[in-house]
Amino acid sequence: MDQNALPVAVDAMGGDNAPHEIIKGAELAIDAGIPVMLVGTPEALSEVDNIPVRYASEVIGMGEDPATSVRKKKDSSLVRSAEAVRDGDAIAMISAGNTGAIMASALLKIGRIRGVSRPAVATPIPVPGGGKPNILLDSGANAECNPEWLVQFAEMGAVYARDRFDIKKPRIGLLSIGEEPGKGSPLVKDAYGLLSDPSWQERCAGEFVGNVEGRDLMSQDVDVIVTDGFTGNVALKTVEGTAKSIVGALLEVFSSSAEAQEGVKLLTPALLPLYETLDPESVGGAILLGIKGVSMVSHGSSKAKAIFNAISTAFELSSDEHVQHLEQVIKQ
Amino acid sequence: MDQNALPVAVDAMGGDNAPHEIIKGAELAIDAGIPVMLVGTPEALSEVDNIPVRYASEVIGMGEDPATSVRKKKDSSLVRSAEAVRDGDAIAMISAGNTGAIMASALLKIGRIRGVSRPAVATPIPVPGGGKPNILLDSGANAECNPEWLVQFAEMGAVYARDRFDIKKPRIGLLSIGEEPGKGSPLVKDAYGLLSDPSWQERCAGEFVGNVEGRDLMSQDVDVIVTDGFTGNVALKTVEGTAKSIVGALLEVFSSSAEAQEGVKLLTPALLPLYETLDPESVGGAILLGIKGVSMVSHGSSKAKAIFNAISTAFELSSDEHVQHLEQVIKQ
Repeated sequence: MDQNALPVAVDAMGGDNAPHEIIKGAELAIDAGIPVMLVGTPEALSEVDNIPVRYASEVIGMGEDPATSVRKKKDSSLVRSAEAVRDGDAIAMISAGNTGAIMASALLKIGRIRGVSRPAVATPIPVPGGGKPNILLDSGANAECNPEWLVQFAEMGAVYARDRFDIKKPRIGLLSIGEEPGKGSPLVKDAYGLLSDPSWQERCAGEFVGNVEGRDLMSQDVDVIVTDGFTGNVALKTVEGTAKSIVGALLEVFSSSAEAQEGVKLLTPALLPLYETLDPESVGGAILLGIKGVSMVSHGSSKAKAIFNAISTAFELSSDEHVQHLEQVIKQ
Repeated sequence: MDQNALPVAVDAMGGDNAPHEIIKGAELAIDAGIPVMLVGTPEALSEVDNIPVRYASEVIGMGEDPATSVRKKKDSSLVRSAEAVRDGDAIAMISAGNTGAIMASALLKIGRIRGVSRPAVATPIPVPGGGKPNILLDSGANAECNPEWLVQFAEMGAVYARDRFDIKKPRIGLLSIGEEPGKGSPLVKDAYGLLSDPSWQERCAGEFVGNVEGRDLMSQDVDVIVTDGFTGNVALKTVEGTAKSIVGALLEVFSSSAEAQEGVKLLTPALLPLYETLDPESVGGAILLGIKGVSMVSHGSSKAKAIFNAISTAFELSSDEHVQHLEQVIKQ
């Protein structure tokens, strides 16, 4: 480990399994040579001894209003995490807490990249049998969007796909309700026109492949899927819910009889890689694209493994100058 | 079979597997005692001998513009099917063809129920382990909606859930991006206010259970999920695509080694009911709610079994006076 490398600021208080699983995830990162700083209340961090800590007296809850809570809870773990990035004490931040509040604190304290209209949440969608996940954005930050924002989401998504998944020329699809250019809402139709212009595609070295549909979220024929935050959030949670329902029903089947259990034993070696692909803990966190610092959002249900994956991704992206790459592509 | 019962008009030309699988589906219906009339070109129906036929010289393709094709192709199988219902020669119609064109021909020839602002497509979503499917509407007819239409979708969805799945007091959820009333787009926030009014709930004997999220599409805690046609279509295809990706990956796993194949043999008896639940062929078709006659839309990929299920559902709904029940609930 580079002794001088800046740490990733980890909000120890965010998510359903805080602080215990968050701290465990931070320990995994330390073991892997990734510098980490835990941000939380003295009580929550009382037993941490091998990881640098920064204390905060307040916690923003999952149900709190993002803007209000960030403004009022100045000494919250989330606000302090964002300030650590702003002040150059941390290279990136991650939290499994209230997504809106993470966005608000990142926006308020770290700020947006010059030229970015609206930051977006970009979430990896697993692709069974396909290797790299697809990136869905905006998956929840902006319930209402205009066509120009969708173009900027496409640009940022292309840079992210390249930096995170090493895709040289990411294929970008526009989420709609039919493949033909004329299909969809007025927003989608207008965005389609703008996205067909080659100039932004050259700028971000991406390729617009036209409309894609809900059935293409796990497709191997696209890398980045662009949509407004309302549709994106519904689609994301529909993928999660459908996968969870099917996996849950399968697990019931697997334990339904002695014969079934015997069968599962034989299948396990072949099933494990698929389970790993679909496991939200493996896919890693979402990122806020457009913020002047790597800011990752882990799923509220994250356990140590997911937190470790998010920390490790945040550290790699920061080291690879992801934010600078975004700055180069965004039109001022 | 009641010798005087009116038949279900079946568009023999619609869908990826027409006319062969459509005719096979119609034969299954005849075997089950359900009267059917096949509508198609003389060539397509040349080998049909035990089912009444009505000839049409034209076919509306999957990619054709709905309004234009229905207006121009007056002698198409789809338009002739709708006319059979209009003229009292058939009790209901079904097609696996172009959804927009089915809607346009039903609207133009059969007409909408008095008081209905916009008909909607209502699609059953399988609920693994849950018995009855959930109903999602609008799943594609109206890309843009206003809040009042969503209330009417809720009313029609409640009647449909009762008539089709025998749910006495259907629980109706509004698809949004957070469970709290304030979450979502302006459309959703306005609709939430209207849906909270008890008067429409009394009228249709339904119960508004608040916002639901994408992850609740397969939930056992809701019966009818209301949304605009853009979001609904994305959500529907996301469910289908996710289920298909996972099932496809599972089938690969199952045949990946001799050991795995041995395991699958032991699991098969327990797996089959789940496979049946998720099989789009079993769930049956979507319905156009708000049309003055039962009009069903089968998936484009429908095979005989799905066609048979759609015919059988259409016949039952018609016999149970589903359209009259809708008319009683819709405010004039």
